[in-house]
Amino acid sequence: MRIGLDMMGGDYAPGEAVKGVKLFFDTVTSDAHLVLIGDEAALKPLLEEAQLDVSRYTVVHASQVIGMNEHPTRALKEKQQSSIAIGFYLLQHKKIDAFISAGNTGAMMVGTFYSIKAIEGVQRPTIATLVPRENGTYGLLLDVGLNADCKPENLVQFAILGSLYSKHILNEATPRVGLLNIGEEEGKGNLLAQAAYPMLKDETRIHFVGNVEGRDIFTDKSDVIVCEGFTGNIVLKMAESFHEIARRRGIDDEYIDRFDFEYYGGTPVLGVSEPVIIGHGISHQRAFKNMIGVAERMLETQLLEKIKESFIAK
Amino acid sequence: MRIGLDMMGGDYAPGEAVKGVKLFFDTVTSDAHLVLIGDEAALKPLLEEAQLDVSRYTVVHASQVIGMNEHPTRALKEKQQSSIAIGFYLLQHKKIDAFISAGNTGAMMVGTFYSIKAIEGVQRPTIATLVPRENGTYGLLLDVGLNADCKPENLVQFAILGSLYSKHILNEATPRVGLLNIGEEEGKGNLLAQAAYPMLKDETRIHFVGNVEGRDIFTDKSDVIVCEGFTGNIVLKMAESFHEIARRRGIDDEYIDRFDFEYYGGTPVLGVSEPVIIGHGISHQRAFKNMIGVAERMLETQLLEKIKESFIAK
Repeated sequence: MRIGLDMMGGDYAPGEAVKGVKLFFDTVTSDAHLVLIGDEAALKPLLEEAQLDVSRYTVVHASQVIGMNEHPTRALKEKQQSSIAIGFYLLQHKKIDAFISAGNTGAMMVGTFYSIKAIEGVQRPTIATLVPRENGTYGLLLDVGLNADCKPENLVQFAILGSLYSKHILNEATPRVGLLNIGEEEGKGNLLAQAAYPMLKDETRIHFVGNVEGRDIFTDKSDVIVCEGFTGNIVLKMAESFHEIARRRGIDDEYIDRFDFEYYGGTPVLGVSEPVIIGHGISHQRAFKNMIGVAERMLETQLLEKIKESFIAK
Repeated sequence: MRIGLDMMGGDYAPGEAVKGVKLFFDTVTSDAHLVLIGDEAALKPLLEEAQLDVSRYTVVHASQVIGMNEHPTRALKEKQQSSIAIGFYLLQHKKIDAFISAGNTGAMMVGTFYSIKAIEGVQRPTIATLVPRENGTYGLLLDVGLNADCKPENLVQFAILGSLYSKHILNEATPRVGLLNIGEEEGKGNLLAQAAYPMLKDETRIHFVGNVEGRDIFTDKSDVIVCEGFTGNIVLKMAESFHEIARRRGIDDEYIDRFDFEYYGGTPVLGVSEPVIIGHGISHQRAFKNMIGVAERMLETQLLEKIKESFIAK
């Protein structure tokens, strides 16, 4: 398998990206061949200094970089030699099997939807985040910002996508799906939640366990929590801010440390036909290493084939 | 002023309610006369034990109690001698000037809307929560669960109500209003947020400062944060759960301690014509004391008159 990595994406690229590759090579036994996309001149000294095994990677030169604050659509159009544009070109043409970037999130979204297709039957691809739980495992929350307005059937599809991710990537044998809501009983909530509840209950591809509330997000009441992307994004950003507050206040706690996105690295785009992972702009080496690991696992477990089967079957 | 307090509401009533009254009397200089509504036989020994100044309170007997899990509408209809039903009767008939209960939240809501009116011009009364900020002050977040689905004009009214509360109760001279959203720029967000933004910008009764994200909730980027009640309730419950996690993990931090709802006690219902404060079911003495204090301040500052003027003026 060939995993493409944007070496120029993120505030600390390419230095931290190179370190992340090294960390991956040093700590993970893997057959993955990495395709490192970025400015050759900038990468060369860093790669040499890192003394990476040259048989395990290839550099693909990209002469341009899309800045973190550039307009996504315009930037992708105008900068066809950017690392992100080249990454999607390679993915689209099967030169790589997965693409990872911690660069401009909007450009990654636009690139995903313009260059690779949604899986047949998936109405709205989605982005998910891992949710650290006190018992040491991770839950999954989706959508976290791609779909600010949703229909009930979108939430059902998120539940299916999330369940497959939870099962194959997070090793939950029978992921329990919860609907993020503002009350425990069926019938509670806003119009969307009220309409989604019976549909989730009837859906045979998932194991629905009912509503979960804001206080249940970090418990293991469910393994996959579905919501529209507005609420999901607020939850994600708020959780990150708690981690920052704790760090700022000198609170040293093993569990709260796991709220650091570096632990899980990136956000997979689920429901598209190739693996795409979007990293946080402030990713450091561990985040890069973890994103490579997730991409590898998505390929190894043939997650996308399983998603395709699940949606074709219906 | 006469402040009515449901002595039977909440998991630790009436014991903690009595202790809360004592704490208020002992620590706050106040002319408020408290009307304690509850079972006389149950209250008598507790009140005697507490050795309260008998000139500062009156007991009104209520022979029934609405349980925390009873169906609100049915319970209120069938238990007209309950402390909540009697409290609203007294409020409606001007025998008390404010009503506080930590009892069945649904019954408090139903009681509020059936027995006292919305202020003229207010389309949707709302409930707010205080948000602790690291600088020691409190922000305000609303709606936190009463209005799960909102129109943009509802958010504008929440902004006006919240600004008046922030100004008169929390002493913010010119409260800055933020729209809870998933991006910083105008145009970001779901359809509701996109539509609310320009209306908030045009509203002359508030000082709108733009979008705030999930990571900004606990900062002082704004003093009043508006959102629909679905997201607001998720945020509230999630913040409470962080406090519980921190406590469970033995984290001792002055700021995180302030996430304890006991600090602020209760949730005012804003936009109705009499002061109503709804307490948390697990309120202890400090929460009761603080709720009495908030009710007193709402009366002292004539907050409701100011709200009425603001809505009539437009």
